[in-house]
Amino acid sequence: MSELVKNAVGRLVPTEINGEPAIPFMGIGKYKPEGRRFAPKISSNSDFPLDGNKQVADLKEALVKAGLKDGMTISSHHHFRNGDLIMNQVFDIAKDLGVKNLRWFPSASFPCHAHLIQYLEDGTIQRIEGSMNGPLGKFTSQGKMNGTAILRSHGGRYQAVQDGEVQIDIAIIVAGTADMFGNANGVTGASASGLLGFALADSQYSDKVIVVTDNMVPFPCVPWQIQGNYVDYTVVVDKVGDSEKIVSGTTQITKSPDRLLLAEMTAKFCDAAGIIKDGFSFQTGAGGTSLSVSQYFGDIMRERKIKARFARGGSNKYLVEMLEEGLIEYILDGQTFDLEGVRSMRENANHLDTSPFTSYNYHSKGNFAGMVDVVILGATEVDVNFNANVVTHSDGLLMHGIGGWQNCLFSKTVILPLPLFRNRIPVVVDEVTTITGPGELIDVIVTERGIAINPLRTDLIEKAKNSGLPIKTIEELKAEAEKICGIAEKPQFEDKIIAAIKWVDGTIIDVVRKVKQ
Amino acid sequence: MSELVKNAVGRLVPTEINGEPAIPFMGIGKYKPEGRRFAPKISSNSDFPLDGNKQVADLKEALVKAGLKDGMTISSHHHFRNGDLIMNQVFDIAKDLGVKNLRWFPSASFPCHAHLIQYLEDGTIQRIEGSMNGPLGKFTSQGKMNGTAILRSHGGRYQAVQDGEVQIDIAIIVAGTADMFGNANGVTGASASGLLGFALADSQYSDKVIVVTDNMVPFPCVPWQIQGNYVDYTVVVDKVGDSEKIVSGTTQITKSPDRLLLAEMTAKFCDAAGIIKDGFSFQTGAGGTSLSVSQYFGDIMRERKIKARFARGGSNKYLVEMLEEGLIEYILDGQTFDLEGVRSMRENANHLDTSPFTSYNYHSKGNFAGMVDVVILGATEVDVNFNANVVTHSDGLLMHGIGGWQNCLFSKTVILPLPLFRNRIPVVVDEVTTITGPGELIDVIVTERGIAINPLRTDLIEKAKNSGLPIKTIEELKAEAEKICGIAEKPQFEDKIIAAIKWVDGTIIDVVRKVKQ
Repeated sequence: MSELVKNAVGRLVPTEINGEPAIPFMGIGKYKPEGRRFAPKISSNSDFPLDGNKQVADLKEALVKAGLKDGMTISSHHHFRNGDLIMNQVFDIAKDLGVKNLRWFPSASFPCHAHLIQYLEDGTIQRIEGSMNGPLGKFTSQGKMNGTAILRSHGGRYQAVQDGEVQIDIAIIVAGTADMFGNANGVTGASASGLLGFALADSQYSDKVIVVTDNMVPFPCVPWQIQGNYVDYTVVVDKVGDSEKIVSGTTQITKSPDRLLLAEMTAKFCDAAGIIKDGFSFQTGAGGTSLSVSQYFGDIMRERKIKARFARGGSNKYLVEMLEEGLIEYILDGQTFDLEGVRSMRENANHLDTSPFTSYNYHSKGNFAGMVDVVILGATEVDVNFNANVVTHSDGLLMHGIGGWQNCLFSKTVILPLPLFRNRIPVVVDEVTTITGPGELIDVIVTERGIAINPLRTDLIEKAKNSGLPIKTIEELKAEAEKICGIAEKPQFEDKIIAAIKWVDGTIIDVVRKVKQ
Repeated sequence: MSELVKNAVGRLVPTEINGEPAIPFMGIGKYKPEGRRFAPKISSNSDFPLDGNKQVADLKEALVKAGLKDGMTISSHHHFRNGDLIMNQVFDIAKDLGVKNLRWFPSASFPCHAHLIQYLEDGTIQRIEGSMNGPLGKFTSQGKMNGTAILRSHGGRYQAVQDGEVQIDIAIIVAGTADMFGNANGVTGASASGLLGFALADSQYSDKVIVVTDNMVPFPCVPWQIQGNYVDYTVVVDKVGDSEKIVSGTTQITKSPDRLLLAEMTAKFCDAAGIIKDGFSFQTGAGGTSLSVSQYFGDIMRERKIKARFARGGSNKYLVEMLEEGLIEYILDGQTFDLEGVRSMRENANHLDTSPFTSYNYHSKGNFAGMVDVVILGATEVDVNFNANVVTHSDGLLMHGIGGWQNCLFSKTVILPLPLFRNRIPVVVDEVTTITGPGELIDVIVTERGIAINPLRTDLIEKAKNSGLPIKTIEELKAEAEKICGIAEKPQFEDKIIAAIKWVDGTIIDVVRKVKQ
């Protein structure tokens, strides 16, 4: 590992990762990219079938035709979440073919991909760059992966591909429906998973693109969320994924009275701050608490007879109900979190699919995130400087991806409703284990025992003054937690860096180290 | 002008145009592009307003902020056809600012742009690269433009921008509706003109992008046919264009008995050739004869109770009626030719907007053109080798753009229904004035006095054998025309090349010379 330097949030980060130069985080908006976007090779229609039929016999033939070989970068997207059935097969084929040293570049991996640990062990896969939820994260935290993981936000992943930081050799795009030309979508078919936005960059910038479906329809496949003009090969398989598994444990609304209290306090805070007004916009993350916040928003909107101009999804049945009730004019959706979300996107012209390009890419001419009035997010830890962590647990294990979390921090008001402690371990700490988002972008921490407002947001402090809500300082919250739980033991790490956490602009905001056994 | 070489269709073409190297046409599919797509500069959100509001006071401020200066390339699109109200203003502003030597890169220009002749004369505009319908074409044919015109097909224009042959400094995108972020569409608002597909490349690859609208709505402008993430500035004006003028003289169905006969013969030929079957697809161009062919297709489909999988538009009320009647499953539309087309695209999810990228770009991994079973097109002349001309008239004047015509030649069967003569000048000739499309891609010429099938299409010759249709050789057709009209005088040209005609791959298929006064 290369030399370590202290970055703008005081973390020691390397200037080289996996043999490539890395730029330490310089502060929000400080790093100015130079150069030009990645330029894919120019294709010619004369190298493609004139009748548009790009279908090959099976996944193996597609991979062989795409030139799969040692050291390549294989990308995938996670719309099936824990129900993905294809990527394990892709690496089984790579293993069969004796291919080594691959970089897997998923938008996220899930417990279903624990199957791939054997390939990380035998050298088929050299490293994973992408969110690692669960077993692969744990494996990596134990220092067992050959390369260093790189975690990026959804927007950061788009940025990395667009800017050529990650050059994808073969992209695998798994679609509920496709045509032989490669037009594809995730909203129709028996294996509909919603949209395919996470695969947009992969389709646009990869050298070879393979579309896999279990529902091949005559041209045109409508809507064409992925455009066949970017696609090299199409493949039909029996089943691409388990749609039911796009619902994960974190996308059910909470039934916990504690969390409902958090949600209610959050909604009340938003109301006191004047955020909930006609034409406002909001985004609630995929966590149970966040989801129930939107329910409370709905109650307020109904009462006042106002509506939201738009809600950003992750969509789910709760948000869909609000759309259908007319409380929300548009859902701008990045990821459907249940089958009601899929249905709504298919049927309702006001339920739009978005992509990390439209919503989150920081190396762009703006994106949608900054236009959202309030965003409700989760975190594993937050510190007295309002820095927050979403990737590591209190035991130091890398267990979660960044998702759109970093990107959403650019919304006008960012609120984290968090329990003050989890399993008797305080959530508000002196210093978070891993800085995933800098405190200056995090405005409000709502806990069951009080609400802390970032001192930078004097406007919110002023508005909350006479709200009757329990406004406290973040230090007061920390002290309360410690009074109850004591000071938590810090996780112990070895020196070895097992993962780098990128900021939305591609710079390194923090690293994760191997946990001490 | 540089040295001239004979290209693959025997035309003498330059190897340099406007000081830049030019590649002579090498035959269909023969030129293999090397290199990479054009890579725009990487932007950063930190240089754009966080709340997404990119609106500036007026068009002049937008142009000044975009850095308008001598020698720049200004692009525009032609969805308003002869009803465009913006581009004359843009160059009025350039003139006011004293800017010189601009290249105007429209997807097409119309008679309404005759206003710009003064700027071609005074050096504000150095040259136009784009279809020039009417007065600007005539001006150019008279040798009065400083630079050499370059005409490209719709797909060739996308290709040229994608490949970096034309680098756009400032793109002007005129939209019926937009939001302050720059999301824009052409289907809604009082000045709806349909879609904005011709401006797609401009949005993706230009250095600066300005969206102009007369209907600014709160974010999000839905649908976002143009994505605000590509846009630098937004501007509101009183009126962007006359929607009524998107209907041009060539987009009315013919009432001429001669042309109706041509249309009927064309439909009968298609039927005899087995093309009209359940699930087939077709494209009829914007000409009056072509339009009425689809009416005859409709009659046949109704009778047989079959339907077309899709029709490619240019859409119009006739095609919309067929969609609404259920005769066509999808309209894949590149350009709405009347307000019924606009309405249908707005209301009907099966009426899709396409772009030159999806439909026509030859430097891609295929496009939609090759998947169309039959396409009906016009031409000003066709020769005994089936080469056809769509850009110059029999008097040698450059009066038309290529449009999607060249791109459509890749469809499975290409039919040109043409009167055998116009104004007593034969349409079938020994050699067309300007080769716009090579004969090997043109399958059938239908005239009122007989149908000629390209000898390459032995399959069609076989199928038409017992059809009862008047099948003749192209030489027979020419002889008939000459028997009636005599041999037409050829237009007289000077040596000076006033325009280059590009093939879909960016090579030069022919040139147009200054007409002798």
